[in-house]
Amino acid sequence: MNAFIGTGAAIVTPFTEEFTIDYPALEKLLNHTKNLDYWVINGTTAESATLNSEEKYAILDFARKHNPTKKPIMFGLGGNNTAEVVHQLQTADLSGVDAILSVCPYYVKPTQQGIIAHYHAVADASPVPVLLYNVPSRTGVNMDAETIATLAQHPNIFGVKDASGDLVQGMRIVNSTPNDFLLLSGEDTLTIPLISIGAKGVISVIANVLPDEYSQVINDALNGNFPLATTEMGRLLDFNEALFEEGNPVGVKAALSAIGIGTPHVRLPLVQSSEELRTKLSQQLAEIKLE
Amino acid sequence: MNAFIGTGAAIVTPFTEEFTIDYPALEKLLNHTKNLDYWVINGTTAESATLNSEEKYAILDFARKHNPTKKPIMFGLGGNNTAEVVHQLQTADLSGVDAILSVCPYYVKPTQQGIIAHYHAVADASPVPVLLYNVPSRTGVNMDAETIATLAQHPNIFGVKDASGDLVQGMRIVNSTPNDFLLLSGEDTLTIPLISIGAKGVISVIANVLPDEYSQVINDALNGNFPLATTEMGRLLDFNEALFEEGNPVGVKAALSAIGIGTPHVRLPLVQSSEELRTKLSQQLAEIKLE
Amino acid sequence: MNAFIGTGAAIVTPFTEEFTIDYPALEKLLNHTKNLDYWVINGTTAESATLNSEEKYAILDFARKHNPTKKPIMFGLGGNNTAEVVHQLQTADLSGVDAILSVCPYYVKPTQQGIIAHYHAVADASPVPVLLYNVPSRTGVNMDAETIATLAQHPNIFGVKDASGDLVQGMRIVNSTPNDFLLLSGEDTLTIPLISIGAKGVISVIANVLPDEYSQVINDALNGNFPLATTEMGRLLDFNEALFEEGNPVGVKAALSAIGIGTPHVRLPLVQSSEELRTKLSQQLAEIKLE
Amino acid sequence: MNAFIGTGAAIVTPFTEEFTIDYPALEKLLNHTKNLDYWVINGTTAESATLNSEEKYAILDFARKHNPTKKPIMFGLGGNNTAEVVHQLQTADLSGVDAILSVCPYYVKPTQQGIIAHYHAVADASPVPVLLYNVPSRTGVNMDAETIATLAQHPNIFGVKDASGDLVQGMRIVNSTPNDFLLLSGEDTLTIPLISIGAKGVISVIANVLPDEYSQVINDALNGNFPLATTEMGRLLDFNEALFEEGNPVGVKAALSAIGIGTPHVRLPLVQSSEELRTKLSQQLAEIKLE
Repeated sequence: MNAFIGTGAAIVTPFTEEFTIDYPALEKLLNHTKNLDYWVINGTTAESATLNSEEKYAILDFARKHNPTKKPIMFGLGGNNTAEVVHQLQTADLSGVDAILSVCPYYVKPTQQGIIAHYHAVADASPVPVLLYNVPSRTGVNMDAETIATLAQHPNIFGVKDASGDLVQGMRIVNSTPNDFLLLSGEDTLTIPLISIGAKGVISVIANVLPDEYSQVINDALNGNFPLATTEMGRLLDFNEALFEEGNPVGVKAALSAIGIGTPHVRLPLVQSSEELRTKLSQQLAEIKLE
Repeated sequence: MNAFIGTGAAIVTPFTEEFTIDYPALEKLLNHTKNLDYWVINGTTAESATLNSEEKYAILDFARKHNPTKKPIMFGLGGNNTAEVVHQLQTADLSGVDAILSVCPYYVKPTQQGIIAHYHAVADASPVPVLLYNVPSRTGVNMDAETIATLAQHPNIFGVKDASGDLVQGMRIVNSTPNDFLLLSGEDTLTIPLISIGAKGVISVIANVLPDEYSQVINDALNGNFPLATTEMGRLLDFNEALFEEGNPVGVKAALSAIGIGTPHVRLPLVQSSEELRTKLSQQLAEIKLE
Repeated sequence: MNAFIGTGAAIVTPFTEEFTIDYPALEKLLNHTKNLDYWVINGTTAESATLNSEEKYAILDFARKHNPTKKPIMFGLGGNNTAEVVHQLQTADLSGVDAILSVCPYYVKPTQQGIIAHYHAVADASPVPVLLYNVPSRTGVNMDAETIATLAQHPNIFGVKDASGDLVQGMRIVNSTPNDFLLLSGEDTLTIPLISIGAKGVISVIANVLPDEYSQVINDALNGNFPLATTEMGRLLDFNEALFEEGNPVGVKAALSAIGIGTPHVRLPLVQSSEELRTKLSQQLAEIKLE
Repeated sequence: MNAFIGTGAAIVTPFTEEFTIDYPALEKLLNHTKNLDYWVINGTTAESATLNSEEKYAILDFARKHNPTKKPIMFGLGGNNTAEVVHQLQTADLSGVDAILSVCPYYVKPTQQGIIAHYHAVADASPVPVLLYNVPSRTGVNMDAETIATLAQHPNIFGVKDASGDLVQGMRIVNSTPNDFLLLSGEDTLTIPLISIGAKGVISVIANVLPDEYSQVINDALNGNFPLATTEMGRLLDFNEALFEEGNPVGVKAALSAIGIGTPHVRLPLVQSSEELRTKLSQQLAEIKLE
């Protein structure tokens, strides 16, 4: 799936003051990120947990229609109820979707065997290729390299977004899966080292705000210019840290609103960023833009 | 809420070979646990993540009707989409439910402020009293003692099931909440020490299988006989460890099937216990019963 | 070893402005803590890592001579070079020492088998009974319950100071060692729950500063009055937290100096408490004394 | 300090059956590793905790005399008693030593301020340049990037061996220290990604056994050929994992004995590798050599 090499953004869902979807702001955001390699719609950063089904597909539809560069679209579709995920895959209209991003079952803590059975069911049912998503800090369970290697044998599973932070696991994934199996970073700060051991890109949060700056980092790393990439990333580290201080997408929405894209509103159980964080992010953004 | 002092079981949902609800087995289980202080219906151990709404309320209804001792019933109702939880509370028929057990929002990692806002919305909407549920190993976020103390001020929140494993946090909860605020253990092995610092009981997994043996432990601790409770609990430690080896309720269903209650079947993404685990649990149970 | 039931203090080593041992202050401290059940001399809290051999035994000698109540004395003697520890045990003058406290080898990360071999050598060589000391946050390795049970068979090993924070491990220790094997707490905040599952006391830091208040807590717990103990401990929790904010014995020396016992001086690589911490500790102490 | 770019080995100390230093085996090992970029003598892997002072300097002397290629020599000299480390630096004969490797104080858990004061004293006293060593899993404390940046200002501190496993910290170190400040890896499996963000090499354990194979990996990474380095490293991952299964240098001594260099003997509190591990390592080595 060469379509997903490089930098994709997990697009946030802008909300109005009434907490409905703010389509004008979404259009701005899609335009702001139009030079990225692809979009992820309805990812965790989109607050997918609080979007109802109608909203999810409306956003997908909107993205499809505001995509003049024909960017590939990945769609978040996963859960911890296998039967329900399979049902959605069998009934949803996924036309225009190039792949789904399907998170490892959260909260219920399946064994590795359970994870394999889950993803086999998902991949069997999916009309489009499936990207695994490993994010133990949220799900409470790690998907082992061996599990990923097993799943990589399924013809409808083409890669994994790994946010485990474990580089040795990354190396094991690269060394135990076919050459065209895609390892993508799920943590913006670890993408450079992950690329050095074989990752092909990143599904990014920061790219919502700084699409050019961050994709420059990734491209330099993908082109083998690691010293330059590291220097460029160095300028973004403090900003990135602040971005996650009050959770995600709380920070990234604060930063987007600072550059005129949408409001800082998030839906419960998340709460809006503090005034302090918004001020800090604005200042950091100004400094980054000056450099 | 004196109704929830002592030992409650988070009742499992027995499945048939076709993965539908096995009501005869459920009846057996309700009968097997009828001397406990209360039941928790539709908790995590019930595989609530994979039950649809109809099934959840059917089980609740069944439990109500098979409750000759008029045991109090707690019902699991929570989630990481505040609006959806509120909607369910406003629309569900909760007659016969004495309290709800509402888990801290998982996966989305709210700040403490977000957790407070979430539970305020839940408690405002709930027609019955609310028990908080803190389980960081599953949710990815801890609910701090200070947060719990703030929430304890809400008239419709009467306690917390804490599975953080942090005894100092337990002490802080006890010392910063009103006397009638209930601290309940969410880990069977830590209930004794938690009682010593003020907890009033436990929502238990092991009590599905060994209701008399485990409630004996808890009663002895609640009566201040800690040495006896510790000796009795000592006999259950290896069994309890095995019970969680392949996840929950995978192990407890294996153990229940070994004593003739239901099958070891679980729904995906969980998978059935290994033959080895079932053999081990059977042997351990036999030894416990002999002692 | 009934001598070590109850509350012992790991006595700090007061330093003069020139960083030599401040014997007048030490005398004050010994007098201040004279009602405790026993003293631990040359423990971690004594900054034993930065005391030379002559100093260690001079302090021991001083404590022996300023001990009108004939309090039992435990002496810290351990290390990560087994041969060296054995050599010290064979050559040192340990007259007047009732037991040694010997820390699990730090930094080198032995296996459980290595820990057993180490302590067997130590216990074989020691002229006095040995108390094991498990403190994984400092040593980088946990001493398992099974290891402790094995070591408990040695006639010269009479107990363990456990600072693992793991209450299940505590329960396993109690259930797998002889009745007279002593489990002592190594964390002041966890002593109450540890006593509920069979611990017989604590080697304390806070008891340097608040010997009466803290031993009251422990006595109440040992007498089975857990609610009272928990309430009393509740008043000390914030102070105790502050005590460790800048490391140990940095905080406890700050607090002692606030009540007129010695200076806040510590030897490198530790550095003296901040002004802010000293102010906070003074205020907290004043509040505790008022209650 | 260009002398320490590339691959150095933390040379083990071979022991005879009587646990004295086995100089013939040491000579073999020095010869076996003669093509590495440098040697680290008296590192943690040398079991420096159990070597007495005489032995340490005898080994240093031996290495100096068996160094026909005039390889640079780094010497381990550190501790958690600042005054004692300073004293050793002031009195030891460090002729022929190009730098010292000085570990962050273990066990006593200094604050960052304490770590800075410690290293300033060490660097002021040292007659040769100092390499910091951060290894939180052993010491119980992390040396923050900011601390390292502060220490990098000292003219006698030229770099850091970082075994924190934290790549973001690595990036921050590189971005906040002068260009000639050396970041070296302290974990063999993480060297490749660490090089991608600016590290210049590694102080290695595995290089004792596989000096050519592992330095090939490192050279390829340093030359920017990350895909090749990752593929080569992939072949060593299982072996490397086994190498640490029973602790270090337990495993590496087992592997060395399998290739005819010394015995598997280690000094207490470490204990010799199991028969199973030795068999596994032998088989893995044979496979690696065949590839």
